[in-house]
Amino acid sequence: MITNQRHTVSLLVDNQPGVLSRIAGMFSGRGFNIESLCVAQTMDPLISRITLVTAGNDMVIEQIIKQLNKLVNVIKVYDLTGSNFVEEEMALVKVRANPEHRAEILRLVDIFKCKVIDVCATHYTVEATGNQEKLRALLELLQPMGIKEIARTGSIALSRDRK
Amino acid sequence: MITNQRHTVSLLVDNQPGVLSRIAGMFSGRGFNIESLCVAQTMDPLISRITLVTAGNDMVIEQIIKQLNKLVNVIKVYDLTGSNFVEEEMALVKVRANPEHRAEILRLVDIFKCKVIDVCATHYTVEATGNQEKLRALLELLQPMGIKEIARTGSIALSRDRK
Repeated sequence: MITNQRHTVSLLVDNQPGVLSRIAGMFSGRGFNIESLCVAQTMDPLISRITLVTAGNDMVIEQIIKQLNKLVNVIKVYDLTGSNFVEEEMALVKVRANPEHRAEILRLVDIFKCKVIDVCATHYTVEATGNQEKLRALLELLQPMGIKEIARTGSIALSRDRK
Repeated sequence: MITNQRHTVSLLVDNQPGVLSRIAGMFSGRGFNIESLCVAQTMDPLISRITLVTAGNDMVIEQIIKQLNKLVNVIKVYDLTGSNFVEEEMALVKVRANPEHRAEILRLVDIFKCKVIDVCATHYTVEATGNQEKLRALLELLQPMGIKEIARTGSIALSRDRK
């Protein structure tokens, strides 16, 4: 049976030009969309970690991961799907702060343990972290007030050790 | 005079396979390394926002941005550099939690307003948000205890409106 599942894949790669383009190309070449992707340095500035989320046929994703493992500059690939891992995302949300909505926005910020990191005459910029469901719930509640702009990081993840 | 500066670039793009690979390829094709990159959906699931940080010759980056603007599936490119914007990053840090270090780790978590989001017999997983300097300072202080793994999102950014 063909199953389509959300996959969270974590890669350690050499921090060099061209690596990201080749990895993203491996997915798009097979028609797979990358739902979200983060890449940044690790503690070793020569090595970056990529965390990407994609959805699709499990068998094809397994093939892509085998091929990723063969790429020059790819050090290690972990498909975290099905294993035990922590996953978090961050979003910056610029929401319209009409005077009659300010108290409600600040209540939501409090309940969702967010922070207001910028204020202008008409908008608040809220920083929120959490899993996808938490961010979805927050955005649904903020949307009626008017979301002007949003920047999301996409998920980052680390395996849990339970040995 | 040729100046090299850190550039934070924000792009709105169609949420389609191949877009990320082409954009990353525009930088690597000119030998530019992408220091960090995040891509995730906006409030419109058909549109994704990419935030990327790169450093290099200002003139060449200007050329790259002009070319990015011409790419199919690229809706808008903003070079935030030099403008007024908020920028934040998130990191998950798995730090060795020897019994004699636990109080100190929790003090740092408190001072840096982080959260411990996972605990196992030997390690704490800490979620931290902030600008690059804040994260660098935290990592410098955690490093002597032993950082086993780290996943960073890279920066996301939104312009400040000050009209």
